[in-house]
Amino acid sequence: MTDLIYEQPLNEKIRSYLRLEYLSTQLQNNLTQDHQHRCFYPLFSLCELTDRCDYRSDVLKDLDRNIALLSKWLELPHVDKAQINDIINRLTQAKAPLQMPDRIGIHLKKDKFISALRQRFGMPGACCNFDLPQLHFWLGKPWKERQLDLQCWIDQYQPLLTPISLLLELIRNTADFTPADAKAGFYQGDSAQALSLIRVKIDTSQGCYPTISGHRNRYAIHFVDFEQQRHTDKTIQFLLATCT
Amino acid sequence: MTDLIYEQPLNEKIRSYLRLEYLSTQLQNNLTQDHQHRCFYPLFSLCELTDRCDYRSDVLKDLDRNIALLSKWLELPHVDKAQINDIINRLTQAKAPLQMPDRIGIHLKKDKFISALRQRFGMPGACCNFDLPQLHFWLGKPWKERQLDLQCWIDQYQPLLTPISLLLELIRNTADFTPADAKAGFYQGDSAQALSLIRVKIDTSQGCYPTISGHRNRYAIHFVDFEQQRHTDKTIQFLLATCT
Repeated sequence: MTDLIYEQPLNEKIRSYLRLEYLSTQLQNNLTQDHQHRCFYPLFSLCELTDRCDYRSDVLKDLDRNIALLSKWLELPHVDKAQINDIINRLTQAKAPLQMPDRIGIHLKKDKFISALRQRFGMPGACCNFDLPQLHFWLGKPWKERQLDLQCWIDQYQPLLTPISLLLELIRNTADFTPADAKAGFYQGDSAQALSLIRVKIDTSQGCYPTISGHRNRYAIHFVDFEQQRHTDKTIQFLLATCT
Repeated sequence: MTDLIYEQPLNEKIRSYLRLEYLSTQLQNNLTQDHQHRCFYPLFSLCELTDRCDYRSDVLKDLDRNIALLSKWLELPHVDKAQINDIINRLTQAKAPLQMPDRIGIHLKKDKFISALRQRFGMPGACCNFDLPQLHFWLGKPWKERQLDLQCWIDQYQPLLTPISLLLELIRNTADFTPADAKAGFYQGDSAQALSLIRVKIDTSQGCYPTISGHRNRYAIHFVDFEQQRHTDKTIQFLLATCT
C-alpha cells in the first residue's frame, strides 16, 4: 500500500509556483544523487521559465499579503504567537534576496559552459561526446566537484525557490485531508471561498489516478484506471483537501 | 588519473550511428539504475530520431558490405577463421529483425501512455503531477515493474540498436591508439584512405578536452582548457586512433 498525492492548481499563479517547486525538488534530488548529465534538465527548465517570466513581483506581493494576514492573526486570542512570529520572520527574511536589482539566474546565463550546453540540450540525443566534449570532460570530474558546481548553479535560483516553497507550505496548510468517495469514479465539489489548490491522496492499490479540473469555486475529479487507460466506473475512496 | 575517450564522426552516417549508440547506452543505464522519469529522455529522443529518419536501409547495406568484406578475408592465409566466422554470423543474425515490414518503434507510438508523456516532455518543467498524473502513478509503481515496462519499450528498438553497436565495434577495431603530441594544443593529420571516425584518448589531469573537426581525408584537433574555456597553448599528450 502506497499513498500518492496529486495536486491541481486552480489558477495560473499557483500553477507556476508548483512547477517551480517541482524543479526545485528535482534539483535537490540531483544534488544528493549523481544522475550525470540528467541534472541539467531541471536546471535548464528553470532557466527557461525564469527567462520567460519574472516571478519576483508575484512572489513579493504574496509574501507581503501573508505577512499582513498573519500580523492580524497575532491580535486574536488563543493563537500560537510563537509559531506565527516564526512564519512572519521566515516570510520577511525571504523578501530581501528577491529585491536585488539583478534578474534571477542572470549570472548563469553568462556562464559559457552552461550556455553551450543549454543550446544543445533540447535536441534529441545531443549530449553525445562529439556534440559537447566539454560536457564529457565535466562528467569525468569526481562527483564531489560536480556537486559543488551544481550547488553553485542552484544557489542562483534560491532567492526565488525558497519563498515559493514557503508560500506553498502555507497554502497546503489551509486544509486537512478528509475522506471522500467518488461514485462511478467521479466527484465534484464547490466552495464559497475561492480555492487555489485541490489535493487528492489515494492508495495506489486501487489502480487509478485522478484527473482534476476546476476554477476558483468549483472543481471536478475523474478517476482513470491506469491499466485500461480509461475512466473507471468503480467507487473510489480517497482523501481530499481543498486549499484556499 | 582518468582517461576519457572523445570521438568525432567524419560523416553523417557515423554521426547518426554514434547518436543512436549513445541513446542505447543511456537506455541500458536506465534499465540497471532507477532514474525515475529521467528514463524517458533517451527513449523519446530515440522515438524522434527514428521518426525523422528510417535508418534501416543504411544499416542493412553496411551489414551486407561487412559480410562481403569478411567473407573475402576468409580466403586469405593466416587469418583467425573462427573469429571471422563468428562476426559474420552476428552480422547475418542482425539482418532478419531489420527486414520486418513494420517501421522501428511503431508500436510504441501507438501506446497511449507513452504518447501522452511524449507530448509534454519537451516543455520546461512539464513533468509535474498535475501535467501528467499518469506519470505520477507510474512512478509510484515498484522499480521491478517499471523495469519490465522499460525493457519492453527498449526492446522495440533493439533490431536497430544491436547491429549499430556491432558496426561501430568493427569500425573502432580498424585502428589502434598510438601516442601523439599536440604542440601548442593543436594537431592535424591526413590519410590516403577515407576516414570515418577520429578517436582521442586523453588523461583528464591535463585539464583539456579536444574539439575535433575534419572530413574524409583530413582532420584537425584543438585542445581547449576547461577551466579557462579557451584554446590551450600547452603541449598536450594524447592517444589517437583514426578509424576507416
